[in-house]
Amino acid sequence: MTAILVSEVGPRDGLQSISRIMPLEAKKAWIAAEAAAGVKEIEVGSFVPPSLLPQLADTAELVAFARTIPGLRVVALVPNAKGAARAAEAGVHAMSIPFSMSETHSLKNVRKSHPAMIEEIGAVAAIARAAGIDFAVSLSTAFGCTIEGAVSEDAVERLAIAAVEAGAQELSLSDTTGYADPAKVKRLVRRIKTAVGADMLTTLHLHNTRGLGLANALAGLNEGITTLDASLGGIGGCPFAPGASGNIVTEDLVFMLQAMGLDTGIDLHQLLKVREIVSAALPGEPLYGFTPDAGLPLDFAQGNHA
Amino acid sequence: MTAILVSEVGPRDGLQSISRIMPLEAKKAWIAAEAAAGVKEIEVGSFVPPSLLPQLADTAELVAFARTIPGLRVVALVPNAKGAARAAEAGVHAMSIPFSMSETHSLKNVRKSHPAMIEEIGAVAAIARAAGIDFAVSLSTAFGCTIEGAVSEDAVERLAIAAVEAGAQELSLSDTTGYADPAKVKRLVRRIKTAVGADMLTTLHLHNTRGLGLANALAGLNEGITTLDASLGGIGGCPFAPGASGNIVTEDLVFMLQAMGLDTGIDLHQLLKVREIVSAALPGEPLYGFTPDAGLPLDFAQGNHA
Repeated sequence: MTAILVSEVGPRDGLQSISRIMPLEAKKAWIAAEAAAGVKEIEVGSFVPPSLLPQLADTAELVAFARTIPGLRVVALVPNAKGAARAAEAGVHAMSIPFSMSETHSLKNVRKSHPAMIEEIGAVAAIARAAGIDFAVSLSTAFGCTIEGAVSEDAVERLAIAAVEAGAQELSLSDTTGYADPAKVKRLVRRIKTAVGADMLTTLHLHNTRGLGLANALAGLNEGITTLDASLGGIGGCPFAPGASGNIVTEDLVFMLQAMGLDTGIDLHQLLKVREIVSAALPGEPLYGFTPDAGLPLDFAQGNHA
Repeated sequence: MTAILVSEVGPRDGLQSISRIMPLEAKKAWIAAEAAAGVKEIEVGSFVPPSLLPQLADTAELVAFARTIPGLRVVALVPNAKGAARAAEAGVHAMSIPFSMSETHSLKNVRKSHPAMIEEIGAVAAIARAAGIDFAVSLSTAFGCTIEGAVSEDAVERLAIAAVEAGAQELSLSDTTGYADPAKVKRLVRRIKTAVGADMLTTLHLHNTRGLGLANALAGLNEGITTLDASLGGIGGCPFAPGASGNIVTEDLVFMLQAMGLDTGIDLHQLLKVREIVSAALPGEPLYGFTPDAGLPLDFAQGNHA
């Protein structure tokens, strides 16, 4: 049975797009409950200046807490070398830097041109190496940009190679804006795997902006993707890409993977209950997902799947 | 560019699951607007007794109206030979009979065992042949049943062959209950195509009950499926299968297909506007779909897709 890693990014990508601040204790309960349900990797926060994202100001405390959970891989986002130093100090297992394939988006989001970003990636890579931490570069807006529109696939390939040369240990393709479609996922995953080596690209970060999230995930699985980012209840989005709604929903993704006979190691019944924690901590906040409403199929409960 | 036929089933599958009755004039406006947007096939209603489904009591009038629209293939569902005779008299281009792969569901839904259904299919086939009308058998609950749970794939194969022997001109696989997953779609489409001939199975009828609808559609496309049923705004469901929500959403499906470079012949901007007709005719009725809320991507508007 093929193992697929479902990486929960809700505590970072989800919470950063919500203006209310989830209390630290609720975040801890959420992370602990998801880990208990079998989720093996969680992006717990982001080392951005607290003045920019007060919602994630407690990331260092969350890292410390999450590190106490056996078997959990603790990931944080870092915007730059300064954030990377803080992440290393906090003790993450892995850090990830977003590298926007749209230079306009990059300039608007982190005020850095592509050459400046490559330099930053080099600096973060050095920090990660020194600390013995895994380091991924997330190729964001890889499928299109809400400001620029189409993003050239030639540019994505060129920038992917540059990121690896600058020290990225792995890449992920990120549909920040919900512009991906299955044909483009297939084409771009193949192309980048060919350009940088298949093992360098195993992760997709997808949003469900136009309802294609799981179809895009399937297209990725068919091309050898083995890690999929998702957000519990589908909360999240990109605060810098208006109109781009939440990540693909962890619950629906896990249902799809398990129904297909893929091994996630996650107890779906237990995962569905985690929703209550998020819902209670953010009353009135819309949560997405179809499986939570519909419930599991009868044959699923009968254990007839795969 | 591969052509994919998007078959709108909202006026039948959608409206039958809503207790309110959409006025005939609104239905006509809906059908006309979708045809004007480029939709080439519409299931306009069902020839069931009006006492059972008063929502669809005007199906004969709708068939007559839809037949006046140039280039539109007018389809109706028929539950039995009696309905088939009415459909033929009304002048449909094609009729479709649901044949539930779950015998329990069949008994509950139409009070017929599998052998009784095969006999009925034979009778409907004779009526269709005599009238020169296309005739499809929809293998419903093919992916699982809310009463029986798992439905044996051996049984689906056996019943598919029996339906063809009884006179079906084509088959469709129907996920009435939202139990399908991409692996099962791949497996079952391959198996039934092998059993009855690839050209005999070109249609999938999918629901989005657990959010997997478009992923399942993609799995079907990858196996040579060329017709996909969908419902505008995702309204619809199966009144006999509690918990099974609406069909896949026409708007999201068409967006996915066109983004992938597949030819639907549909003007997506125009299609999105049809929603207003349905919404105005059924105020307060929930409509689904992500693309209508998110809008089309910037690069889509730029014409950079495919």
